[in-house]
Order: sequence, then structure tokens, then C-alpha cells
Amino acid sequence: MTGSRPVIPAARYQGRLAGAAAAAARAGLDALLIGVGSDLRYLTGYAAMPLERLTLLVVPATAAPFLVVPRLELGAAQAGVRSAIDIRTWDETDDPYALAIADITETASVAVSDTMLAMHVLRLQRALGSGARMDLATPVLRELRMHKDDDEVAILRLAAQAADRVVAAIAAGRLIGRTEADVAREVRERLIAEGHEEAHFAIVGSGPNSASPHHDASERIIQAGEPIVLDIGGTMDGYGSDITRTLWVTGGDPANGPDERFRHLFSVLYAAQAAGTRAAVAGTPCEGVDAASRAVIDGEGYGEAFFHRTGHGIGLDGHEDPYLVAGNDLPLAPGMAFSVEPGIYFPGTYGARIEDIVVCRPDGPLVLNEASRELYVVDG
Amino acid sequence: MTGSRPVIPAARYQGRLAGAAAAAARAGLDALLIGVGSDLRYLTGYAAMPLERLTLLVVPATAAPFLVVPRLELGAAQAGVRSAIDIRTWDETDDPYALAIADITETASVAVSDTMLAMHVLRLQRALGSGARMDLATPVLRELRMHKDDDEVAILRLAAQAADRVVAAIAAGRLIGRTEADVAREVRERLIAEGHEEAHFAIVGSGPNSASPHHDASERIIQAGEPIVLDIGGTMDGYGSDITRTLWVTGGDPANGPDERFRHLFSVLYAAQAAGTRAAVAGTPCEGVDAASRAVIDGEGYGEAFFHRTGHGIGLDGHEDPYLVAGNDLPLAPGMAFSVEPGIYFPGTYGARIEDIVVCRPDGPLVLNEASRELYVVDG
Repeated sequence: MTGSRPVIPAARYQGRLAGAAAAAARAGLDALLIGVGSDLRYLTGYAAMPLERLTLLVVPATAAPFLVVPRLELGAAQAGVRSAIDIRTWDETDDPYALAIADITETASVAVSDTMLAMHVLRLQRALGSGARMDLATPVLRELRMHKDDDEVAILRLAAQAADRVVAAIAAGRLIGRTEADVAREVRERLIAEGHEEAHFAIVGSGPNSASPHHDASERIIQAGEPIVLDIGGTMDGYGSDITRTLWVTGGDPANGPDERFRHLFSVLYAAQAAGTRAAVAGTPCEGVDAASRAVIDGEGYGEAFFHRTGHGIGLDGHEDPYLVAGNDLPLAPGMAFSVEPGIYFPGTYGARIEDIVVCRPDGPLVLNEASRELYVVDG
Repeated sequence: MTGSRPVIPAARYQGRLAGAAAAAARAGLDALLIGVGSDLRYLTGYAAMPLERLTLLVVPATAAPFLVVPRLELGAAQAGVRSAIDIRTWDETDDPYALAIADITETASVAVSDTMLAMHVLRLQRALGSGARMDLATPVLRELRMHKDDDEVAILRLAAQAADRVVAAIAAGRLIGRTEADVAREVRERLIAEGHEEAHFAIVGSGPNSASPHHDASERIIQAGEPIVLDIGGTMDGYGSDITRTLWVTGGDPANGPDERFRHLFSVLYAAQAAGTRAAVAGTPCEGVDAASRAVIDGEGYGEAFFHRTGHGIGLDGHEDPYLVAGNDLPLAPGMAFSVEPGIYFPGTYGARIEDIVVCRPDGPLVLNEASRELYVVDG
């Protein structure tokens, strides 16, 4: 099976680097300074560990890119970098910041990756001096990263399907009497067993905790007759999975089933999520998807109970452009991948959310998750 | 068992916040701006997810601290924060940076947490304006964070012992014929099954890859008659584990045992690691531990083959102060926790490393890892 897994061909990294340099030049930048993180992985293939020692990709607008790495990371960098690129090492007592900006003038305009750590940002600013200008690289890089190619979509699909299987296994298993944290542990184990390299989050919000969108799993014990919002994901070959399903555990007693108010809430939510997905066609502004989901919820008088955006882009970052939020008039284009995840929350009582990963295709939205979006009424 | 696990008492967070404000005042800072990460967790207990939406703890030197969070994180923040602290929420279309610095003057000196993301650093700088000064908060906070109390040491010990058990299980299992990546997957699964909430790294360096200190696990298939460097760790209640052991797999054939050169290398390494640990007594400068390990390796002519520092602090960050490196004259003090991990590497051939987590105690070094430090000569 391993041999048939989709991979990003090495040649594509060369193209991405060239595209980044060209985009930097168009933006009037002298160089992009890319720290450890998904921008680095996108441009070189190198999934470096985020450490206090500086690893930095320098992409000058008009010269060859090079990678600065600590000497002890040289082997890892050589193994990780997928294209031919000059690697410059520094020893434990060297100044890596001076090495990185040696060719950059005192009045340069540079841009740093979004996820570079403050410790590196401030030291680069000091090394560059007060005459230089530093902005964020994302406005330049997102034009490349937002548009997933077929290989990227294939990896996103594998990750989504693996997460689907974890949802199915959790919904079929024992839940009542266990703590949220214990269920979250099982989620993480299953995500990894299904091929994720990391299990980044396992939100298990039971009972009133289901009304807190980013609730962490707590020591609360799950009871019969309440909902559970399960929002889980991790990375596979660097690309994220992210799925949310809502369960209701009965303990096998139909009298413990969802009450009328929850059934109504969920039916509205289901329609809102479907409306958001249907709206996700090329040319629609991002805020249009948000508006489509929100209109359904507003129409039923639940507007106040849906207090977050409808979705976020996904790729090498779990949250990235494009964001499906009011005010974002960026038109959707083929290759964009994002979540569609409205929620309805009654704080202190309960809530629900449904989330899929959706890819904008020329012929319409492609939903990568295949797990049922219905309310999972289970014995637990 | 859950009830008997060590926890940080809620009252301690209040003390940490007060200590941070006092330290900021002594350093001439107007405020600390603490983003998502271990500084935030240390000061409040809140293990927020690192996201593009701003979550920021503001610790003024002379006023009450408060936490800025996106509205949809309010429930998570309330559940995560362990002390009474004012929480200010912002909605999807608000400017959270303006909200965060509303009480900070145009000529303020502020300090940001080391791991704040560049996207937040640069936006805070813009919001503060050019008259303000921004430094890193770590020189202020490390005085607090470096000194682990007994509860923190107890958690570090549990994490270390869990990692010990994973090493033992991997060393006892099948290795030959499997890829490094497959073994790494098993390591991650076992770390989580042993109670880690995240399995952050699983370096499996076999054969020549054992000579690359930060080798990632690759698709290389493990062969009989070669070493494997296993460097693994994750977090338990936020605190890191980090252990390295070196194995040699024979396939059951004594003729495939380690050669003379490797046996010598390993005996030197073993002595160097023990010397480093013995040197880790209160009052010794950090660089003294490095020097103690290095002297043993240098004395056998392997100096060039040990090209990284001897260790790093560990706590809520996997790498944090104090760093055991030449040039760091900070004296060790009771409560400091760090790795002691010399390595000897012959690039292209093989290498080895031994790593323990050690705590400086008034009565001498306390080694948290209990797994044998000998070379694991196993059938594999």
C-alpha cells in the first residue's frame, strides 16, 4: 500500500521556490525569510522540528535560495530537502542571524513566515537594523499555497478518510462512564493507527461542554442522555485532517434520546452545513459561504448561537487561507481546500457542530469526508 | 490511579503571575505580552491551541493581568485558566491587537513570549507604533520557569518513566525488516498509550542514519548488524519526556554484533554521559557539565565527532533554559531540570547517543530515567 500513496514529486518543489521568488519580486520584497513551519515544508519538503536553534530558508527575489541550518541538523536537512538547494551550516557558538542576512542590505524589505517564532523574529530585526522593513510573507505565499494540486488533494482525501474511520470507531464504542480525556486518548491512538503522523487535536465536548466550540477534553464523565461534539484531526504527510460530528448517547434507553429542542437545533445545523457546502463553488467570495450557512441559522432565530466563522483553509497548516468569514471577498478558485463547519451553541446547556473538508473544483464542491453527517444517536 | 497523579495546585498560578509582574517591573518593562505556548500555560494553566486568532495574556508590571481571547475560545479559556483572571473576548470582526494594548502607552517597553508567532509579533508592533520597544520575555520569565518545584519534578518523573517503558518495549520487539518510520509509528502509539498526551518526536536512526543527531524516521529498512539511535519524547500534563538510547540489532547471530570500533565509541560515550551527570551539581556553571562530558570524548580523540551541546533544559518546553553549552556560565541551582546527552557520530557510518533527564537537587543530581544506559544488543 505504501508504494501507492500519493507523494509530491521532487520537481514540484523547484517550481514552488521559483514561484515564491517571483512573487516576492512582484511584491517589491528583497527576500523572504522562512522559518521552520509549513511554509518551509511547502517550499522545500523539509519538515524541520521547531527548535530554538535557527533554521531559516532565505529566498532572495533575484538570487538563488539557500537554507541556514544548525550543523547537527545537517543530516536531517539533507534528507528532508527535496530540491537542490545550497545548505549553510552554523556551529553551536556562531551567530546564525548574521549568517542568514549576510547578503541583505540595510534598507531591505523582507517578509517572514507567519509561524516564525518571536525569538527569531526579534533577533532578525536586530541583525537587519532599523533601516530595514519587515512584513509577513503570507500575502505573497498564500497565492501559491491556497491552490492545491491534485497530489495535495489526494493526500488531503486520505487524511480525511482516515479521520472518518476514527469517528466511526468512536461512535460505535463505549462512551458512557468514561472521561472526555479518556475518549480523547483513544481518538489520538486511533488517528495514529490510521496513518496520521501526529494527532493534533481531539476535542471531546460532552453535555454542557458541547456548547464550547474549542473545549478541550476534560475529566468530565460522559453521561447517558447528552450530546458529544467530536472535533478531531491530525496530519498525514504534513496535510491536515479535521472533522466534526455530533453524537448523542442514550445508554440504550430510548427515553434518553435527544429532546425536541436539540433535534430542531440539529436539523437547522444540518441544513446550514449543507447550504455552506453547496455555496462553495468557484467564483463565490469566501464570505458567501459563510453567509449561506449563516442565513439558514439566522432564519430560524439561532443567529446569536453561531458566533464563529464558517470555515478555514486547510493544507500543511490546520488553519490557513482562505478563511470563510464575513469581510473576506476573495473569490473561491479551483484547488482551494477548506472546512465548512457551522455550529449552534446554547452556553451551559448543549451545542452541536458539523464539519467537513471541502475542495473547490471546476465542476463544484468536492466533499472529502464521507462519514455520515447525521446526528449519531448511539447507545454509547 | 488518576487521583494520585501530581497536579500543580491552583494557588501556585496566582503566585507565578505575581512573580512575573514583579520581575517585569524589576527589568524596567511596562508589560509582558504572552502568546499561546508554554509561558501562558506556566502562568495561567491554560494550554491554548496555537491558532491564527489572537489569544494573549497581558501582564502589566503594576496592574492586574488579563487574558484576551477570541469569543469562541471563551469556554476553553475559562476551563483552562486556573486562577482568577479577567478574560476579555473579541468577536470575529474586531481588532484584537488594539484591544490587547489599549492600556499601553506609545513609548512603552514590552516583552513578548519566545514562541509567539510572527503574525502576532508584527501586528502587535504595528499596533504599538514605532515609539515602543519590544524585547523577548524569556530573560524575565526564565528565572521563574527554570526552577521546578516538587510537583513539576513529580510530573517530569512520571513522563520519564513512561518513556523508559516505551524504550524497553521497542528494544524487546521486532525491528529488523521494518522501516524506521514504522518503528517511529509504534513509538508514538506507545508514548500515548503510556499516558503522554502528545508524542512530539520519535527519532529512529538506523545504520548510517544513527550518525545524524536529528535524523527523522525514514523509509529505510532496518538491517541486522547495525545500530539504532532511538530518541523519543512527548508531553504529559504539558511536561516533556526526552530519552535517547542506542540499540544494536543482531538478528540473533552473534557474528552480527557490534564491531570493535563501535564498542569503543560506546564505552567512551557511556563514560562521557556519566561524567556529565556527575558534574550536574548546584553551583557548577552550565558549561561545566558540557565540559565534563566533552573532556572524556576529547580525551579519546573523538572531539570532532561530538558537535552539539551536551544538553537543554526541559519542562513545559521540550527545549528551554538552562542550556548546557560552552559559554553559558549560569550556575546550576536546585530545581533545574535538563537533558545530559552527549553523542559521537561518524557521518556515513554510524553513531550513538545516550540521554537522560536530570534534576539538580541540593544533595546532587537526580536522574529521572531508569532504563539501562548500556548498549542494547538485541535480536531485533
